[in-house]
Amino acid sequence: MGPADGFRNNSDFTLNPLDPQEFRRQKYPVRSQVDAGYLHKLLPDSAPNHPEPIQTILQDVHAHIIPGITHWQSPNYFAYFPSSGSVVGFLGEMLSTGSNVVGFNWLSSPAVTELETIVMDWLGKMLKLPNSFLFFDNGGDQMLNKIGREHIGKLVVYGPDQTHCIHPNNFLPVSTSRSTAFGLSPDSLCSAILADLKTGLVPLFLCATIGTTSSTVVDPVGSLCDVAKEFGIWVYVDAAYAESACICLEFRHYIDNVENADSFSLNAHKWFFTTLDCYCLWAKYLRNKATETNTVIDYKDWQIALIRAMKLWLVRSYGVTNLRNFLKTHVKMAKHFEGLVTKDKRFEIVVPMTFAMVCFRLLPSTVTVHANGEANSLDEKHANELNRKFLESMNSPDRVYMHDSCCGGGCLHDPIRSGCNPNGGKTSDRSLGGGTRAC
Amino acid sequence: MGPADGFRNNSDFTLNPLDPQEFRRQKYPVRSQVDAGYLHKLLPDSAPNHPEPIQTILQDVHAHIIPGITHWQSPNYFAYFPSSGSVVGFLGEMLSTGSNVVGFNWLSSPAVTELETIVMDWLGKMLKLPNSFLFFDNGGDQMLNKIGREHIGKLVVYGPDQTHCIHPNNFLPVSTSRSTAFGLSPDSLCSAILADLKTGLVPLFLCATIGTTSSTVVDPVGSLCDVAKEFGIWVYVDAAYAESACICLEFRHYIDNVENADSFSLNAHKWFFTTLDCYCLWAKYLRNKATETNTVIDYKDWQIALIRAMKLWLVRSYGVTNLRNFLKTHVKMAKHFEGLVTKDKRFEIVVPMTFAMVCFRLLPSTVTVHANGEANSLDEKHANELNRKFLESMNSPDRVYMHDSCCGGGCLHDPIRSGCNPNGGKTSDRSLGGGTRAC
Repeated sequence: MGPADGFRNNSDFTLNPLDPQEFRRQKYPVRSQVDAGYLHKLLPDSAPNHPEPIQTILQDVHAHIIPGITHWQSPNYFAYFPSSGSVVGFLGEMLSTGSNVVGFNWLSSPAVTELETIVMDWLGKMLKLPNSFLFFDNGGDQMLNKIGREHIGKLVVYGPDQTHCIHPNNFLPVSTSRSTAFGLSPDSLCSAILADLKTGLVPLFLCATIGTTSSTVVDPVGSLCDVAKEFGIWVYVDAAYAESACICLEFRHYIDNVENADSFSLNAHKWFFTTLDCYCLWAKYLRNKATETNTVIDYKDWQIALIRAMKLWLVRSYGVTNLRNFLKTHVKMAKHFEGLVTKDKRFEIVVPMTFAMVCFRLLPSTVTVHANGEANSLDEKHANELNRKFLESMNSPDRVYMHDSCCGGGCLHDPIRSGCNPNGGKTSDRSLGGGTRAC
Repeated sequence: MGPADGFRNNSDFTLNPLDPQEFRRQKYPVRSQVDAGYLHKLLPDSAPNHPEPIQTILQDVHAHIIPGITHWQSPNYFAYFPSSGSVVGFLGEMLSTGSNVVGFNWLSSPAVTELETIVMDWLGKMLKLPNSFLFFDNGGDQMLNKIGREHIGKLVVYGPDQTHCIHPNNFLPVSTSRSTAFGLSPDSLCSAILADLKTGLVPLFLCATIGTTSSTVVDPVGSLCDVAKEFGIWVYVDAAYAESACICLEFRHYIDNVENADSFSLNAHKWFFTTLDCYCLWAKYLRNKATETNTVIDYKDWQIALIRAMKLWLVRSYGVTNLRNFLKTHVKMAKHFEGLVTKDKRFEIVVPMTFAMVCFRLLPSTVTVHANGEANSLDEKHANELNRKFLESMNSPDRVYMHDSCCGGGCLHDPIRSGCNPNGGKTSDRSLGGGTRAC
């Protein structure tokens, strides 16, 4: 069942997708091939004094901007993370932009605050979350009140070395290994905490991940929460990419025990059909005086208060049943691709596939004889070099854009990530933001 | 000269503004009149299982969302800050959303990074900024390296009590008074710093403001920078609203000495014709190893890297000459309104007008006799009460929406703020996001 099928019986809603041949002709190369500084050479140094017609600007967009765009929505795009913008996501964005209001407090536009609360509950229900995940409080400040603000420098934040972030001071990346499929082991966490306590540091916060950036690994949230609870640590679960799939019953188990965490998040712009950005955060609500006396939320205290709820609300247009089907189909496509890779003995699957990303690499044993005689060794360095070359040979602007697992966070042994691009494949039923269903 | 005039000689660009009568008929009440929780009663508790046509959703938008919107773009809107969305700002937003890419590093879409750099330089040139304001470094981290991370709790941030923010710990709001027209006095700053040094605290950061939220007061940036320099303090100048006007030569002097500050900012969504959000930050560039070795910027290290440059770029469509004229006209309108208020002896202007906001109030002497005999006293409490009632009587959903100066930051003696709404007035030449030029 394709994304368009949901509308088949609905005569009110007609999409006119491009003719497949015409679509292929119009398609832009997936990856930009410009040189650094190209645009400075093409645009004037200062803004024009006199008006310019929109046509001139659109010509500039075509001639100068589009060649500099790497098309995240291209069916050939398999890098970083999927960008699953949809027709209704775009429409939602236009409705938000058209109203051009700020929702920093309830009064400044009541619908903004109220729609956000409602839509977050909708999503929470699709994910079968417990009721405790509806409001927010600040764990860090509580710990500071306990230990005294002057000891802020002693606070330690924990996370697996697979966590996708820039490591600041006071962040301890806990090592993971292939033996736990690169998941964070509760034993390693416990040892790290005990070592820090001995030196007078104060464990504060654990970031666990459901679906790491490098390889979509799922950390054992339940047992990590048990360790964290013992030491009074706030547990945040980053499920940015993977959680969307958990609206399907068969994937819901991946967020089991999330109710023991204090907060967790999903990025609806990654795999839930909204345009950028749409970051959804749930946190357990600790009542306090301020919240007791207010009947409404003032979102200025929580976030940059723009109307992101509108686009998420419009995703309703597909209906939950179809949303589940789309997501299941994406996983099925990735499974199919994994099967093809498994059949080819030149490759190995580096970590078991969980969602819709396949981590694979050329097997080190296929390394050909090297001039210095180090050939056929299992030296990982050579395997990495080989895979890097293989990746380069695949990444052509007109074909596909993939990348290795070292995209800013933890690093595996340089396997190649191939996300299942929801925009990929056949062009005849592209109701969902530019295509569907083939890896 | 009106916003539409720029296109009069331009046969390629035609807008078909609504007929004025039709526009007035279609116009929504400026301020939402819904009760807290209204939307929960109107929308279902969970997302629909089956697809819904866009028409149904648009009917919901009309019936349930629009009544909950306070229309920041309404010609009758004079609260918080102006929301100067324009046709080209909207078009820019659509182009960004359509491409739906992330510009977190140069490679992920080179045009995103390069266009942002170019457009920020355009704006910098319109503002006649020195070249030093092109890159960024982190002042706070330098101070920590100097004093040791364990002393982070001793760092102090300074700003006038008029600064529009939620006061965290370690922020010292320095008192201002009517004698300095609510500007931050360098003497007061110096005293505060010396007092903190005596108790072992470490002065870190000063936030000065050009155009405060409450009353558009301009702090004396030059002499504040002199004080700050003496103590090695990073100076950030918040010119969120007012700086747009400084592209006009006659207003440029308000940002004089900004070259002595370390960083400053402008919100293009407030008074520079883009839609929300478009926050422009300049900071002096301190070279370091990382930047020396890179030829491109990776905006992930600076911000949430979405394509905000596109909408700012499209504002070029008006041409710099027209942009200056629009802004000057807005100030002229506010000046006209100030003249009307001054002529009426029942009112006083509370702080001198600088940009396009008039702070006025009913004079305390007009307080009528009170039952308890406290009438006609100059008691500020009574004056505030009187002005609050006056404000309430003016704010009707169908007329105007204004607010007092206590909108989250510093508080004057509760005067009434009336921003010059760039969308206000005549409806016959509304090429610039919904109207033009009358207060």
